[in-house]
Amino acid sequence: MRLRNKPWADDFIKENHHITELSPLSYKGSWRDLFQNQQAIHLEIGTGKGQFIANMAKQHPDINFIGMERVKNVIVGAIKKVDEAGVRNVRLINENAQDLRDLFAENEVEQIYLNFSDPWPKNRHEKRRLTFHTFLEQYEHILSSNGEIVLKTDNRNFYEYSLVSFSQYGMELEEVTLDLHAMGDPLNVMTEYEEKFLNKGQPIYRCRAQFR
Amino acid sequence: MRLRNKPWADDFIKENHHITELSPLSYKGSWRDLFQNQQAIHLEIGTGKGQFIANMAKQHPDINFIGMERVKNVIVGAIKKVDEAGVRNVRLINENAQDLRDLFAENEVEQIYLNFSDPWPKNRHEKRRLTFHTFLEQYEHILSSNGEIVLKTDNRNFYEYSLVSFSQYGMELEEVTLDLHAMGDPLNVMTEYEEKFLNKGQPIYRCRAQFR
Repeated sequence: MRLRNKPWADDFIKENHHITELSPLSYKGSWRDLFQNQQAIHLEIGTGKGQFIANMAKQHPDINFIGMERVKNVIVGAIKKVDEAGVRNVRLINENAQDLRDLFAENEVEQIYLNFSDPWPKNRHEKRRLTFHTFLEQYEHILSSNGEIVLKTDNRNFYEYSLVSFSQYGMELEEVTLDLHAMGDPLNVMTEYEEKFLNKGQPIYRCRAQFR
Repeated sequence: MRLRNKPWADDFIKENHHITELSPLSYKGSWRDLFQNQQAIHLEIGTGKGQFIANMAKQHPDINFIGMERVKNVIVGAIKKVDEAGVRNVRLINENAQDLRDLFAENEVEQIYLNFSDPWPKNRHEKRRLTFHTFLEQYEHILSSNGEIVLKTDNRNFYEYSLVSFSQYGMELEEVTLDLHAMGDPLNVMTEYEEKFLNKGQPIYRCRAQFR
């Protein structure tokens, strides 16, 4: 995606501190305090323009959602979406976390969403894929005992890779869906990418996996 | 598939006793004696008309292949294919084995092929699917420690089901391929079904899984 520079992005992120959290590292282990409730925490890694997290938050007011997006020019779109949705159970983090264990305590998160993550198709970039085993180690640490990873993608190779990576790490697949919209899940919330690829007639892959 | 009755099938199976094995239960634990060599044994469950096993046997003369097919009118086709191929490393069994552990000793088999198995789409028929956990127990018993299941199918739901079933049984996925012919595997040997579905433009799914 080509990004236009948005010189006002920094200010915009700061102004919207009811949605964005500027010092996320300080909330490790106490995210529920920030939300001022004891609800489960779901984490989306790579929130993009925010359609998914805004609509999920509306659909599930009993869950706290945290969205991470490292690109400033993109997260401003997500801030707008969340603001328009009028939900209070979302926080967005403009953080390129080197390690999620710096942001979340052990067992602090109940669900992780990987939506249309960068597939990094070249073999030499395997380490950057969000389903590479070094990331799975982080997810395992921060997820609660029944916690799940829910992955959606349109990229066949990334999906194949991720299923094998989950399995070889010792995870259990709870669900494998090779054409989400042919199956039809009334609770599915679409991302911007998902709408685009669906309109092109491409299948959307989804899976759910747990650590044993 | 509609099958014409072949009244000569019984005689044909008996006449070709260099290819068919009429008393397979008596070879449990000693299949290599029948082949008169110490080569690895690969088993295809549901051999159909035999194109796969005949061509695999040609491609891999260093492996012994056993094909099971319970339908008499179908196995006669496989006998012809194997006969035409002129290979000596194949035996076909016209057996509807209730339990593979009656046919093979522990660790006797190194690879199991499930090619375009009946998907049994109705939930109430789940127990009949060849990737239901009761079958996996049998495969685990007869497979050697590095033994693998190699599954190919055109049926999306059966494939999704099988990946989850393997995973939930504790197996490790070695390979997941959602479009075998887009990827292109020069060693792939096609079944009759595979050619048909490929010609219709349908993707062929494949996976390889191991017991831990």
